[in-house]
Amino acid sequence: MTHKIAILGASGYTGAELIRLIAGHPNMEIVALSGERKAGMTLAEVFPHLRHLDLPALCRIDEIDFSNVDLCFCALPHKTSQEVIRDLPADLKIVDLSADFRLRDPAAYEKWYGNAHAALAQQEEAVYGLTEFYRDEISAARLVAGTGCNAATGQFALRPLISAGVIDLDEIILDLKCAVSGAGRSLKENLLHAELSEGYNAYAIGGTHRHLGEFDQEFSALAGRPVRVQFTPHLIPANRGILATVYVRGEAEEIHATFQRAYEGEPFIEVLPFGEAPSTHHVRGSNFVHLGVTSDRINGRAIVIAALDNLTKGSSGQALQNANLMLREKETEGLMMAPLFP
Amino acid sequence: MTHKIAILGASGYTGAELIRLIAGHPNMEIVALSGERKAGMTLAEVFPHLRHLDLPALCRIDEIDFSNVDLCFCALPHKTSQEVIRDLPADLKIVDLSADFRLRDPAAYEKWYGNAHAALAQQEEAVYGLTEFYRDEISAARLVAGTGCNAATGQFALRPLISAGVIDLDEIILDLKCAVSGAGRSLKENLLHAELSEGYNAYAIGGTHRHLGEFDQEFSALAGRPVRVQFTPHLIPANRGILATVYVRGEAEEIHATFQRAYEGEPFIEVLPFGEAPSTHHVRGSNFVHLGVTSDRINGRAIVIAALDNLTKGSSGQALQNANLMLREKETEGLMMAPLFP
Amino acid sequence: MTHKIAILGASGYTGAELIRLIAGHPNMEIVALSGERKAGMTLAEVFPHLRHLDLPALCRIDEIDFSNVDLCFCALPHKTSQEVIRDLPADLKIVDLSADFRLRDPAAYEKWYGNAHAALAQQEEAVYGLTEFYRDEISAARLVAGTGCNAATGQFALRPLISAGVIDLDEIILDLKCAVSGAGRSLKENLLHAELSEGYNAYAIGGTHRHLGEFDQEFSALAGRPVRVQFTPHLIPANRGILATVYVRGEAEEIHATFQRAYEGEPFIEVLPFGEAPSTHHVRGSNFVHLGVTSDRINGRAIVIAALDNLTKGSSGQALQNANLMLREKETEGLMMAPLFP
Amino acid sequence: MTHKIAILGASGYTGAELIRLIAGHPNMEIVALSGERKAGMTLAEVFPHLRHLDLPALCRIDEIDFSNVDLCFCALPHKTSQEVIRDLPADLKIVDLSADFRLRDPAAYEKWYGNAHAALAQQEEAVYGLTEFYRDEISAARLVAGTGCNAATGQFALRPLISAGVIDLDEIILDLKCAVSGAGRSLKENLLHAELSEGYNAYAIGGTHRHLGEFDQEFSALAGRPVRVQFTPHLIPANRGILATVYVRGEAEEIHATFQRAYEGEPFIEVLPFGEAPSTHHVRGSNFVHLGVTSDRINGRAIVIAALDNLTKGSSGQALQNANLMLREKETEGLMMAPLFP
Repeated sequence: MTHKIAILGASGYTGAELIRLIAGHPNMEIVALSGERKAGMTLAEVFPHLRHLDLPALCRIDEIDFSNVDLCFCALPHKTSQEVIRDLPADLKIVDLSADFRLRDPAAYEKWYGNAHAALAQQEEAVYGLTEFYRDEISAARLVAGTGCNAATGQFALRPLISAGVIDLDEIILDLKCAVSGAGRSLKENLLHAELSEGYNAYAIGGTHRHLGEFDQEFSALAGRPVRVQFTPHLIPANRGILATVYVRGEAEEIHATFQRAYEGEPFIEVLPFGEAPSTHHVRGSNFVHLGVTSDRINGRAIVIAALDNLTKGSSGQALQNANLMLREKETEGLMMAPLFP
Repeated sequence: MTHKIAILGASGYTGAELIRLIAGHPNMEIVALSGERKAGMTLAEVFPHLRHLDLPALCRIDEIDFSNVDLCFCALPHKTSQEVIRDLPADLKIVDLSADFRLRDPAAYEKWYGNAHAALAQQEEAVYGLTEFYRDEISAARLVAGTGCNAATGQFALRPLISAGVIDLDEIILDLKCAVSGAGRSLKENLLHAELSEGYNAYAIGGTHRHLGEFDQEFSALAGRPVRVQFTPHLIPANRGILATVYVRGEAEEIHATFQRAYEGEPFIEVLPFGEAPSTHHVRGSNFVHLGVTSDRINGRAIVIAALDNLTKGSSGQALQNANLMLREKETEGLMMAPLFP
Repeated sequence: MTHKIAILGASGYTGAELIRLIAGHPNMEIVALSGERKAGMTLAEVFPHLRHLDLPALCRIDEIDFSNVDLCFCALPHKTSQEVIRDLPADLKIVDLSADFRLRDPAAYEKWYGNAHAALAQQEEAVYGLTEFYRDEISAARLVAGTGCNAATGQFALRPLISAGVIDLDEIILDLKCAVSGAGRSLKENLLHAELSEGYNAYAIGGTHRHLGEFDQEFSALAGRPVRVQFTPHLIPANRGILATVYVRGEAEEIHATFQRAYEGEPFIEVLPFGEAPSTHHVRGSNFVHLGVTSDRINGRAIVIAALDNLTKGSSGQALQNANLMLREKETEGLMMAPLFP
Repeated sequence: MTHKIAILGASGYTGAELIRLIAGHPNMEIVALSGERKAGMTLAEVFPHLRHLDLPALCRIDEIDFSNVDLCFCALPHKTSQEVIRDLPADLKIVDLSADFRLRDPAAYEKWYGNAHAALAQQEEAVYGLTEFYRDEISAARLVAGTGCNAATGQFALRPLISAGVIDLDEIILDLKCAVSGAGRSLKENLLHAELSEGYNAYAIGGTHRHLGEFDQEFSALAGRPVRVQFTPHLIPANRGILATVYVRGEAEEIHATFQRAYEGEPFIEVLPFGEAPSTHHVRGSNFVHLGVTSDRINGRAIVIAALDNLTKGSSGQALQNANLMLREKETEGLMMAPLFP
């Protein structure tokens, strides 16, 4: 059986990544691609690397016949997404890649995003899309909210440790390095090649990055009490990849063993041998997470490092993984491609 | 039916690319991986990006039981390859990725490579591996010689034009730009990141690049008289991709029409609309070739531009395409993945 | 004596490069920096790398007291520049970095730039700013028109050969590779890091690049008859550098000797030993031009390769070199810094 | 007066950077350049970007007449350096760029570097070369030991805070990101462009990096009691630049004020306005340090970020700054060039 798929917001990087992945999925067929500002353009014009695919041209959302769609991916900008999803058919399966449905508490949403939520009913209904930890809920969900890419990386490095109680909850520092595609296809001076390449810097410093909202929500729920991590993201001159270096207090060997237990049998999570450091080089273009643990020379401290591709496992790959569950497909279908190196 | 595959020289970039591709092939199983200097190392140690695959550790070639192998890819260095292949079982199907069996004339081989050929019988037997132009021969072959990656790019841009007689054979200039993975995993100062990034230069200038041997052989055979092109390669600070800018004399519209006819139905060759320029950005990690034609402001001159990924279509993807033919698999099996962008 | 300098359009890359260079000049003092859209911002806000300099904030042009200015650099966009310069004091020394005054013939200007020229008197007065070939005129000029960066590169590789009559004027092909800063600080999708890095492509194909206007004007004047070259620029994933690979007909050794004679004593032009290829790596951030000549395997053909930094020798360094002449400073003052490598 | 300068180990990156800087120094003349393996080669062959300089070819150290040398820079590999310096004339002024004389305690040296020190007398004599904190000792020294580039960065971010007692000495985490030129011109697989670009990773994890020896020595001496920081370096795909993100406990505003006081009047240290984050983009090729402070959302925590160019301020620029002091030159002579951006 072939599932009919629509992608809203197909002219951005997560849209392109969805198309790339779905093109290799045996049981999905893309029937509609939207892009408001680029409506009417062919895919070859918007993304020449996808020119070999026989797909519909971009259209406006209001031109789509959703009765013909089994599942809809929304790769729209934040805020736009909630307005669009609110008005989509109430029985349409949706995987949203924006930030709009990640935070369950409307007050938390408003605090981090600065506006009142415009689709409260859908927000309440949405399931948080970190597949490995919400499998059952996602399988039963109509609307799944894809996680932030940084938020996903940090959670892979911390959730099992918080659940197992093997680290000090008040001493977590997350120094994160992310590639530029995480910022999307937006025209900003600091994203120009001439400005970005050959240098690097921190941004959203001082605990102001919005993905902290997700960390607070998820870690506190896991721990059963408020958990607030320290989080500093850095922009690195590369296109894909997130590396999270997480400083924790706990016994490194116990932390490593906790990961091995927690991720045993997970098809996409590779726990490296103790003491090895993962690299974003080795997950590019794939749905894999590489996870390493080492002890520090200071007793009782450990370093956890997680690497993933922000566009794949951090966003569109995760979205497809969730869609597979929602459509009763094999969870890994279309997602087992090996990373691209070099 | 699953074909048993060995890869000799699996610790280089073309070896890694073969493994990446074959991992996605439904009917191939890798049973042996050789790497003389790294024998005993696991694949995770040699190529951490492939650590999720359940594959044998690297071994020495003399440890492989070839009676259990249906097809062998040789990704060994030039000169080593001929010595190894000479001594492999005489009925073993082989796709060689080195330069050793590309030139049919032993004198030409010696001229370009500086040594007498050590496997003359196999050299005579070998079929030139440019799939789109040697399909029948490859399907019937035991030993196929993969083309040079630059040589492949230039031929996609010129063969149909020479065959159709629509360009001046004495006025062909091929200005080629290639990425660094074409130089392999060799430890040379000019391949270091600090030396290579942020700048670019020509190399093998003055008509000294070895791939000229292939151009001379193939173009002269096609034309039925000697054809000698002018060819200058440049090293560009990127990891994958070849862009060939070819200056020819002829009517641009006729050239474009010639390509459309010649490549009609070809699954991997995309002829762009007249006047559009392809980019290596749009073929990365894929087996596609993008081909563009434009006229110059000077009458009677045209510019043909071809783009492909040197490790995929220029080398390992081509090799798998040929192996599919030799094993009676669908030619495109395992090769239809979309390019990775960004 | 200290010359008082104004820079109009100081918020772009050529503006920043001018400031960097002038900061190291012993006899120049920047007294005004304009930037219409960023007026009021400090230099530290616009260009944090210049924050150590004690310089005025950006202002609007109409706020500048030009009676206090000895020389004005105009780094404004094309078309804006002519309107501004037309209205500047008639005795103010000006070095313009835009394209507005490069073409002497108003019809040629209109053909290549698509609009009638708005400052015909100044256009007639302007001297073409390729220092090594217009020294006397520049020394005596009030208004100097900086050359196109591509145009400069091509001319260094061809002018002495055309003058000396050692190449075939009808068989010149200029395949040029340029870095992204040549496109300026403009917000375009294809200049984003995620779009530009890791790939490359031709642009302005088919003889449509505006710098052809300069080639036509200069080469035809030199030859005393129309000369039209074939010119294809490519965009390379690097920030600085232009490499011109020029295919000519002539005796390579004679060409090399011609360069050695023509550039003898030139402080910024390095003619490499015969057969060596220059690289943009080796001129980055400097005012040097590296020039190489080699013969092809085809008799009577030669390849000339020129490398320079588009922002320095191709633009702001050239501008300062010209300003030195106009102000009776030593021509090399502030310009002898060695390239930055790696 | 012109000082005669020798550079030992001139074929590496710090050697090249020294030559670049000294070429712009009005009162220094390079009289000898050594390079054992490349002895006999001209500078143009070893570093084509320096071909415009009229300098001696590389020679062996034993060919240098040190009686004609006023100051000698040693840019030799670790361990070689101590053996060479031990045997140089006892009254020769020396600035060493290796790790050999940084640690005052021979036991600490042996612990971090794995071998007994071969020049104990010189080790005792050497002055630690962090100019801003050892000015008087350096001015009076015969032998100055350049600091590690990572060690310098971390110290700029921490020394004033430790001295002023405004941070918790047991809670310092230093997450450092460095560019590839810090690894030198060595032929290692992970330094190849194809392996390094487009990805990033931690290395020397778990408190094993040798620069910890310097941190321990210096911070403990400052504090008057043992101080052990947690330090994790990361390798970033760029050629120049170190960014240190330092997590401390203390009041951010007090920390910022402490920096402003401590670095007031320092020509090379730029303390950014409170809350701003520095970037390695803005110090490239210069001797400047950019330093930023911000508070975290968690009370009592602050983040200090320091950026510098590892080859300039982190190594060769620092060395020249020290040589200026030793030769009674102005400390900033030859070092005030603005950074290169883009």
